Amino acid sequence: METYDVRAIGVVRSSLRDLEDAPRQGDEGAPEAELVFEQEFGAALEGIEPGAVIELLTWLHRGNRDTLQTRPRGDATRPMTGVFATRSPDRPNPIGLHTVRVLEAGPLTLRVAGLEAIDGTPVIDVKIALGTPDVR
Amino acid sequence: METYDVRAIGVVRSSLRDLEDAPRQGDEGAPEAELVFEQEFGAALEGIEPGAVIELLTWLHRGNRDTLQTRPRGDATRPMTGVFATRSPDRPNPIGLHTVRVLEAGPLTLRVAGLEAIDGTPVIDVKIALGTPDVR
Repeated sequence: METYDVRAIGVVRSSLRDLEDAPRQGDEGAPEAELVFEQEFGAALEGIEPGAVIELLTWLHRGNRDTLQTRPRGDATRPMTGVFATRSPDRPNPIGLHTVRVLEAGPLTLRVAGLEAIDGTPVIDVKIALGTPDVR
Repeated sequence: METYDVRAIGVVRSSLRDLEDAPRQGDEGAPEAELVFEQEFGAALEGIEPGAVIELLTWLHRGNRDTLQTRPRGDATRPMTGVFATRSPDRPNPIGLHTVRVLEAGPLTLRVAGLEAIDGTPVIDVKIALGTPDVR
């Protein structure tokens, strides 16, 4: 099958340093974080305002790309299931999907609430969430 | 910035053949479609049942990766805005995000409702949607 090049467009800056400290989902006590973008993408950020809800796509660089099955939520009492039936970071293309609210927007930064990604996680895309007023 | 290799794990089979025919979002009259996966990823699909809602990630191979700003929904009366403030397929990493319901699940296929991606679009990831009962 074909492969495609994904470029990091920015990086997550967070107080979460280790996977062990990170909650599994953003609504499970995840902290605020800052998204810092490469200068060349400043024009692509224009129009994102505080209060907007975005779909943030990250590259989960610590994910294991050879994992096809896992135990849901790491619970040893549950049967193995396919990774596509989970949100595990271990999957063939380790892309993270995070729905987060924008708190502050600078020329090359977005401050967001409740992000479970660890410090240093590459950012690969941002989309306005469907259902946000004035989605285009 | 770093780049990463994304592999196609399958392909969209749809009656939508042209971008001109495709609705902008799945809830705007998009047809059913079939997702056909490579054999090696069969184990990763186990556990996805009819009725499940999934987040489908695709590679929008017709997207223009140099586009940083666009007019929302192609509406010439609206001002230019950054592509990250939109859902445009034209963006630095042209990843499509589609929330769709599974109608049928075979060993290497998923039939889904309301998918606006055109025939031949590469599939790069599948995640169970948050809010689906028993999300792991």
